[in-house]
Amino acid sequence: MTPRKQMSLGLSMRYLGYHAAAWRHPQVDPAGASDYDHFLNVARLAEAAKFDMVFLADGIGIRAKDEPEGSLCRSAQTAELEPLTLLSALAPMTKHIGLVATASTTYNEPFHVARKYASLDRISRGRAGWNIVTSWSDAEARNFNRDQHLDYDTRYERAAEFVEVVKGLWDSWDEDAFVRDQDTGIFFDPGKMHVLNHQGRHFKVRGPLSVARSPQARPVLVQAGASEQGLEIAAASADVVYSAPHDIDTAKAYYANLKARLARYGRAPGDLLVMPGFTPFVGRTEQEARDKYDQLNALVDPLLGLSYLYGQMGDLSGYPLDGPVPEPMDAEVKSIARNLLTLARRDNLTIRQLYTQTAAGFGSRIVIGTPKQIADEMEAWVAAEAADGFNICPAALPIGLEDFATLVIPELQRRGVFRSDYAGATLRENLGLRLPGSRYAAA
Amino acid sequence: MTPRKQMSLGLSMRYLGYHAAAWRHPQVDPAGASDYDHFLNVARLAEAAKFDMVFLADGIGIRAKDEPEGSLCRSAQTAELEPLTLLSALAPMTKHIGLVATASTTYNEPFHVARKYASLDRISRGRAGWNIVTSWSDAEARNFNRDQHLDYDTRYERAAEFVEVVKGLWDSWDEDAFVRDQDTGIFFDPGKMHVLNHQGRHFKVRGPLSVARSPQARPVLVQAGASEQGLEIAAASADVVYSAPHDIDTAKAYYANLKARLARYGRAPGDLLVMPGFTPFVGRTEQEARDKYDQLNALVDPLLGLSYLYGQMGDLSGYPLDGPVPEPMDAEVKSIARNLLTLARRDNLTIRQLYTQTAAGFGSRIVIGTPKQIADEMEAWVAAEAADGFNICPAALPIGLEDFATLVIPELQRRGVFRSDYAGATLRENLGLRLPGSRYAAA
Ligand SMILES: Cc1cc2nc3c(=O)[nH]c(=O)nc-3n(C[C@H](O)[C@H](O)[C@H](O)COP(=O)(O)O)c2cc1C
Ligand SMILES: Cc1cc2nc3c(=O)[nH]c(=O)nc-3n(C[C@H](O)[C@H](O)[C@H](O)COP(=O)(O)O)c2cc1C
Repeated sequence: MTPRKQMSLGLSMRYLGYHAAAWRHPQVDPAGASDYDHFLNVARLAEAAKFDMVFLADGIGIRAKDEPEGSLCRSAQTAELEPLTLLSALAPMTKHIGLVATASTTYNEPFHVARKYASLDRISRGRAGWNIVTSWSDAEARNFNRDQHLDYDTRYERAAEFVEVVKGLWDSWDEDAFVRDQDTGIFFDPGKMHVLNHQGRHFKVRGPLSVARSPQARPVLVQAGASEQGLEIAAASADVVYSAPHDIDTAKAYYANLKARLARYGRAPGDLLVMPGFTPFVGRTEQEARDKYDQLNALVDPLLGLSYLYGQMGDLSGYPLDGPVPEPMDAEVKSIARNLLTLARRDNLTIRQLYTQTAAGFGSRIVIGTPKQIADEMEAWVAAEAADGFNICPAALPIGLEDFATLVIPELQRRGVFRSDYAGATLRENLGLRLPGSRYAAA
Repeated sequence: MTPRKQMSLGLSMRYLGYHAAAWRHPQVDPAGASDYDHFLNVARLAEAAKFDMVFLADGIGIRAKDEPEGSLCRSAQTAELEPLTLLSALAPMTKHIGLVATASTTYNEPFHVARKYASLDRISRGRAGWNIVTSWSDAEARNFNRDQHLDYDTRYERAAEFVEVVKGLWDSWDEDAFVRDQDTGIFFDPGKMHVLNHQGRHFKVRGPLSVARSPQARPVLVQAGASEQGLEIAAASADVVYSAPHDIDTAKAYYANLKARLARYGRAPGDLLVMPGFTPFVGRTEQEARDKYDQLNALVDPLLGLSYLYGQMGDLSGYPLDGPVPEPMDAEVKSIARNLLTLARRDNLTIRQLYTQTAAGFGSRIVIGTPKQIADEMEAWVAAEAADGFNICPAALPIGLEDFATLVIPELQRRGVFRSDYAGATLRENLGLRLPGSRYAAA
């Protein structure tokens, strides 16, 4: 019997989970997103459950707007801890789990990013990962000397060059460059230092990096591009791709599309793992799972709920919440609102039902069921080449993780599709990825 | 009897200490500067000795040049860990000691700096500090899209505005802004959120910061300006000033100059601590101390030693090391070299003796003696208003710190001029500094 394909698992742990009302759940500490001990607890639970990695998404500032007025002060997405600082502080308190922090190529400099992630990789002994994003909100732009976010083409052109510079800086030193011979006084072998001398459209960066080669050769690169240029950056450089498909067919198409692009960059299909996200609600019975879902949904404050519709539908606060979703007045709003409107009409949703769906997972797919049902679905996705693993986005932390860890993980382990213990020393090894060679290695 | 004035103590721990040959000392791990465990050991030793803070200086890249050729590969100042990443990783493994990381205003964005230091302050429960620098080397400029470092005026104008923006962002939230009322669904009190809306010459930053007010209201601000504009930034904002005077008279003048500037900013002399740096060589006898100094000096590789003279004197590698220091050929070199030449002539130094003096402390003042002699001198500086405390820059780590902690600290404690245990919960409290109010507080 051939061994069954193993799946990789990441845990998304931004804020207090992916549900807008997570902070109001009676078993959740509403101050957790500002508290190191909360994240330490979550990371340790994830490590005990043998997750490959914890992941912190990021926006550099508060993206939520006060629309309708009075909604912002009901949002928990207003206070947090900076991802790289937080993951660095988790490094010495964990041993095996990967630590993936988001950093934007639009508002950073490649030398800083290369240096900080290389340092985290050394400090964690090979567990660092970088989620490469380009940012998209005007709210972030306004914290960085701009009025609006950069146009798409410039952002992605900058991102592609940024990633190349960072990879180049990570090759600054061969693995055995630092001989540190106390007798001869030679600290490094000058033939094993490489000066990048990058000169491009967006960046001029000399190098070398002032950090020795990292245990993973380079930190694991994560990406979540959906557009043409996003997919190309992923195909060229990413080790892991997050995606957010809502059904298996979309996921299969995305998977095939991405894997087919790898050959052009001299890469094999196994060099890149596709990990769709989902938000599980697990119960010992289906009813228990559904109750958990309903319990959180009932906690969505109407004003906050309406804020999730505002961007597409405009201000619906004058309408009865339990009445039908109205046609937006404004012609422009009307055209963006098409998706939400179609959904509302198809399922005959009230305003309250529509915002609840949106607020329940921030766009993440929601899977409600017993451990068996959820494990079946995960196995089916892997078998169908829709996924190499999953990015688990609990609705509320730590409870959503506790449920998944105690109910679903043992089921996956029993089926032989998920590890019972860490086999590798680094994140890259646990993910089953090859160690990348240096661009300066003799051919 | 009035209690004797207490002194504050910081520990500089960049690389493996301040001596160019530290890495060759038989009791030093030459790989320590790339190794988290080394810094953990140093930070814990410093905490056991009740230091106020550990401090990491920084340059963003490798500043040393390969001049004369062959010298760079003998320098240990080529590989390290990024300060903020490293101090974040030390936060959960220490309890009391302050964590001061350097960040440059020339190559950063204020929103990132405000966010990361506020996060470290929360994670460490009030122990973060920011050493504000403007950078000065072309080597750094070349890693950030420039050929040369920014001119002085632009750098300092940018720095002053940068610091104001960061302070403003740190006031984004009143201390009690986040009510997180699970029953009412109100997460924060909107009257206690403040949008900065900064628009200046160098920065446009909207805010608010996405991090709750930090336990110290704001991280401790450290500065080391010596020039007119550097002193003004310090007077306006710094809690601590590092300086590098070589004698008590220079130190007194600097101290008086800086303290006199505070009133203009509505600050009292006690609101800012002046902490001159020095590199101690301690022995139970004066001879033992001197032997330690000589032992390290003997390990300075001649090529590396000559690289310390190169910038001012040009290439002296063709001259006998034990002969007199020659007049530089080049007229331009000649004028910068005046200080070194004067020193060499006055003390009748050979080339080897001259470079050894330079390489022994990177410009830090060197104090060689018994615990009693060193404590006497420290007390005299404090009594003379030349210092409020000291920034200890051991020649080699951890050994220089071990010597200071076991020999000098107990002597200071016996004299009642240094704490036997931490009294405060935060760095600010341990330094005896007031909690700054918010700019938005009702008058
Ligand atoms: C699971 C997942 C996580 C993401 N995390 C972030 C993030 O932390 N910050 C961010 O600015 N964008 C994030 N994105 C957005 C993506 O980086 C990307 O912009 C988006 O998927 C659209 O792709 P495109 O930019 O190629 O059009 C995320 C997307 C997904 C699917
Ligand atoms: C103890 C001490 C530590 C310093 N640390 C740094 C540093 O880490 N990075 C840096 O670029 N400059 C550093 N400097 C340089 C100062 O920031 C400052 O530029 C210098 O003292 C000259 O002052 P001026 O810029 O006002 O002329 C340091 C100076 C001193 C005295």
